[in-house]
Amino acid sequence: MTKESILDKIITPSDVKKLKKSETDALCAEIRSFLIDTVSKTGGHLASNLGVVELTVALFRSLDLKEDALIWDVGHQAYVHKLLTGRKEKFSSLRSFGGLSGFPKTSESEYDFFNTGHSSTSISAALGIARAKRLSKTGGRSLAVIGDGAFTGGMAFEAFCDAGASKESITVILNDNEMSISKNVGGFSDHLTALRSKKLYLRFKSSLEETLYKLPLGGEKSVKFLKKVKDGIRHFITANTFFEELGFTYLGPVDGHNVESLTNILNSSKNIPGPVLIHVITKKGKGYKFAEDKPSKFHGVGEFVVDTGESSKKSSHLSYSKVFGETLLELSRKNDKICAVTAAMPDGTGLSEYSKVFCERFFDVGISEQHAVTMSAGLAVGGMRPVCALYSSFMQRAYDQVLHDVCLQNLNVVFAIDRAGIVGRDGETHQGIFDISFLSAMPNISILAPSNFEDFKEMLDYALNEHQGPIALRYPRGNMGYTYQERKPFEFKKASVIKSGTDCLIISVGHMLGIAESVLNELKKSGISAGLADLRTVLPFDEEFIKDAAKNYKMIVCIEDGVLHGGAGSLISEFLEKNEINTALLKIAHENKIVPHGGASELYQNAGLSADKILERILTKYKTL
Amino acid sequence: MTKESILDKIITPSDVKKLKKSETDALCAEIRSFLIDTVSKTGGHLASNLGVVELTVALFRSLDLKEDALIWDVGHQAYVHKLLTGRKEKFSSLRSFGGLSGFPKTSESEYDFFNTGHSSTSISAALGIARAKRLSKTGGRSLAVIGDGAFTGGMAFEAFCDAGASKESITVILNDNEMSISKNVGGFSDHLTALRSKKLYLRFKSSLEETLYKLPLGGEKSVKFLKKVKDGIRHFITANTFFEELGFTYLGPVDGHNVESLTNILNSSKNIPGPVLIHVITKKGKGYKFAEDKPSKFHGVGEFVVDTGESSKKSSHLSYSKVFGETLLELSRKNDKICAVTAAMPDGTGLSEYSKVFCERFFDVGISEQHAVTMSAGLAVGGMRPVCALYSSFMQRAYDQVLHDVCLQNLNVVFAIDRAGIVGRDGETHQGIFDISFLSAMPNISILAPSNFEDFKEMLDYALNEHQGPIALRYPRGNMGYTYQERKPFEFKKASVIKSGTDCLIISVGHMLGIAESVLNELKKSGISAGLADLRTVLPFDEEFIKDAAKNYKMIVCIEDGVLHGGAGSLISEFLEKNEINTALLKIAHENKIVPHGGASELYQNAGLSADKILERILTKYKTL
Repeated sequence: MTKESILDKIITPSDVKKLKKSETDALCAEIRSFLIDTVSKTGGHLASNLGVVELTVALFRSLDLKEDALIWDVGHQAYVHKLLTGRKEKFSSLRSFGGLSGFPKTSESEYDFFNTGHSSTSISAALGIARAKRLSKTGGRSLAVIGDGAFTGGMAFEAFCDAGASKESITVILNDNEMSISKNVGGFSDHLTALRSKKLYLRFKSSLEETLYKLPLGGEKSVKFLKKVKDGIRHFITANTFFEELGFTYLGPVDGHNVESLTNILNSSKNIPGPVLIHVITKKGKGYKFAEDKPSKFHGVGEFVVDTGESSKKSSHLSYSKVFGETLLELSRKNDKICAVTAAMPDGTGLSEYSKVFCERFFDVGISEQHAVTMSAGLAVGGMRPVCALYSSFMQRAYDQVLHDVCLQNLNVVFAIDRAGIVGRDGETHQGIFDISFLSAMPNISILAPSNFEDFKEMLDYALNEHQGPIALRYPRGNMGYTYQERKPFEFKKASVIKSGTDCLIISVGHMLGIAESVLNELKKSGISAGLADLRTVLPFDEEFIKDAAKNYKMIVCIEDGVLHGGAGSLISEFLEKNEINTALLKIAHENKIVPHGGASELYQNAGLSADKILERILTKYKTL
Repeated sequence: MTKESILDKIITPSDVKKLKKSETDALCAEIRSFLIDTVSKTGGHLASNLGVVELTVALFRSLDLKEDALIWDVGHQAYVHKLLTGRKEKFSSLRSFGGLSGFPKTSESEYDFFNTGHSSTSISAALGIARAKRLSKTGGRSLAVIGDGAFTGGMAFEAFCDAGASKESITVILNDNEMSISKNVGGFSDHLTALRSKKLYLRFKSSLEETLYKLPLGGEKSVKFLKKVKDGIRHFITANTFFEELGFTYLGPVDGHNVESLTNILNSSKNIPGPVLIHVITKKGKGYKFAEDKPSKFHGVGEFVVDTGESSKKSSHLSYSKVFGETLLELSRKNDKICAVTAAMPDGTGLSEYSKVFCERFFDVGISEQHAVTMSAGLAVGGMRPVCALYSSFMQRAYDQVLHDVCLQNLNVVFAIDRAGIVGRDGETHQGIFDISFLSAMPNISILAPSNFEDFKEMLDYALNEHQGPIALRYPRGNMGYTYQERKPFEFKKASVIKSGTDCLIISVGHMLGIAESVLNELKKSGISAGLADLRTVLPFDEEFIKDAAKNYKMIVCIEDGVLHGGAGSLISEFLEKNEINTALLKIAHENKIVPHGGASELYQNAGLSADKILERILTKYKTL
């Protein structure tokens, strides 16, 4: 006889409230096994979700999500939240085109209050909502759940200070799992370690607090009593914590895998006026051995075999990230000025090995892109040759630091922009399509885009050993590497001609070269003789080459995986305009609209960047000439 | 008999070291009177510089600036530093075109180590330099001087955590004057207040420390002794401070107007390994009564009369900031959903009065642009109608928050972008020329640019009461208001035609309308019949109007005070290309180069945006048609 599923009976948050205490443990177990099973097939964020099963259930028991706003920082840990808000049936579509998003989406559910994706935004959002609730006199609370990693992002601190000083009623739940994506770093992390390790104090404190929570609270008097006793304990045994110095009432630490303790502390917090921080200790990957052992691997994971924790699809392909890490190792052996900076992404950017071999010259600064960039500027001022490795969509967080600290000072900082262009299943918040547009408006910076691993290596070598001034290399997720028949060595400011033609020249930017080549072959079938070039240097690009091309061809097509406005095509267009050249130019790029989540090929298709769509547009335009 | 000037004898930092103790007080007095006298004629940042006279002198006495790197956060307080590094003779050229910059500039002096201008970058830069020094085995220390206001910026926290955890040897000097530009806010500020007010403790502590400093330190043993005694005192009397919990050794507070105490504490700090924070208490405006009383007025000040503290030039002109504040007051009286957010700029953005009248609906979040934007997004989610008022160049710091939190979610947030376009004497770090370029690549956002105060009022009304989705209004410093002969009411997405012509149409963006009109009149003299239109809505612009114009005119000229790449001209150019319209387009905007400091008209001239330069370019292009 199959045991009746509790999870299946949960359609809205209020169903969680109806469960008996004994049923919540069973629910948590069901959620865990469902998550492991589903994510093993869809891929996605696993470890962080396994870590918040009990916390989510407790939040749903304590809150009224018709009134209370609950915001998940980053949002990759909101799978449990999705499961408990009527989205279980759609779960097999997770992260696929048209399916469930891997992050909270207000368009998916009335219980998703704020879209997240990037780190450290939740306290700001929750504070705004809390203020709106106060001003509008609508009821309900406002809560942010934020990891200890996300808390290292500066804007979380900004929001925390504002909340602490304004005494606005918000609840910040610090999900302390001692991790960001890789191992957490920084002074803040050390402080949490200290808090956690005050075991004797904690045991005493929590037993007392347990007793206090059981008192019929609610009245002003009880709150004051609670506060008084707490203050007494605190001052007696330990110092003020960081959080309390900034104006928050601190509760915890509490075991994040005990629904009852969590529900109790959440309920008690309702009676405390002003900002409250609840320190919850969880374990990333909880309940799945392989994820507990390797939470970083199971942070964002592809399809895997449940019984072994091994990936289902063995990928032997090289990736740009891997080539980056290997090449940097090689270059650093020859040049002791080279050093590497990353913002909590040693694995993702391919720098794990580097961090071990050159630990002295490797700086993981935590989820702190702004600091990463300006610290790199400082390294450059001190005579080093730093490479600052960031994902394209996260580099956006350091726009001003790139401009103000690196470009205006014309410093020798290399930006290794990983995940440039479409990234796929992580969706709209993670697509790396803005970098060329915003960088190319800045003074002094150069931009390179490799189409293959060999070029990439040479570009890195050039950038770190020869180039003067800031320079960015943008390259995609995975292995969109083109195989040249006859590759000429990379030369700064020189385009690489792959094929000559007579009618139309296709200029490909970076990793679009494979797609561009298939377009070329199709054009041939339509009787159009097309040439093909790899731009290589996007800024400053090969002006002589473009001038000649404009003379020799009827039409130029520029294909890039980035936004149209301000992209590489725009740079070429500006050049033609300035030089009064009237050759037709077709810019193939992302129009100004949101690129959702899904498989990469679906997204290229959807954005008009697949070979067939590009072909269609070229043919249409060519006919008008 | 004139007393011999000590200041005149200071040519290099080492000259400060040669002074007798008794001479330093006289030097400080001379510097103060020189600063008051000079800035009363040139305008500039006064209060912050008067506050750091003794601190700068003490730093010069303690440091060896041939080896040690000293970084001034924001940098507006570096006048004293400039005076003591051989730049006194050039001081009358302060902030004028070709003259001394109002901020540190590595191009001006070998003693300026890192260019600043925006807030909260100094710890990152100093940490990078410290790491470079360690890796390169070059000697010298690395120090950042940062105000308590700048410390509220998130990236300072990011850098502080990284430094605290990595135990790198840097010295952070917290210049605590209880101010950012206006009164400081936030939990961090409250924490400092608590630290400062521990008077009894401090008195005891500092007398003991004074004694300790006099010990012949330097040996490992003494350092340990000092540390032990300090720890003892600290644990006995007060709790760990915020700074120590994050991994820094905390020294202070120390009187920031006592050169000897400062020199002592600086010298002692040399013997402490790892990161050290020295808490210095200063008074903004120190020594000039009017500046002490109104530090916010004397933060950045125009020319003034020394004896009265009154401005020399009475300005009765309205400014966009003033109109913004007044209009927002009016609109908020009628719509109780409207609220205002600013990042430490209540005065600069014209919101002082608003902050008093609608104190419940006004949020000054400190120097925290990232948080300001996402908190505004939260307010919008909660049903409010927030207007987030930022200077253009500071909005750059919230690029990702505008994109990720506001635009992707299509929220009703109004951005009031003050200081858009050339700002003048603050120079390259403050020119607001990037906003149109980066905003117009983002989905969902609309951009308006008023050319006059009446339009501006109507635009604000529209943005706050009618528009759905994010919308930005960009307007310049001061009063570049155009006077319409016959003004038609503002209509979203509609350009306003001022004059019709037959040959060439000039499209002006925002405050360039006055200059555009003078070009028009000159064109007439050359026999060219030009039309003139005010674009008003930059995005999405009036497509029908542009289509008609392209038919009716031989040439379109777009004039804007922003970067060319990705600017309003680019938007028009993309539209023409997409619609296969070949009408000649001339885009007049800032080329991709740095706009320095100077008077606004000199800068327009220098950038090719003055009437004569624009005329020249139009005539040249027109001849080729």
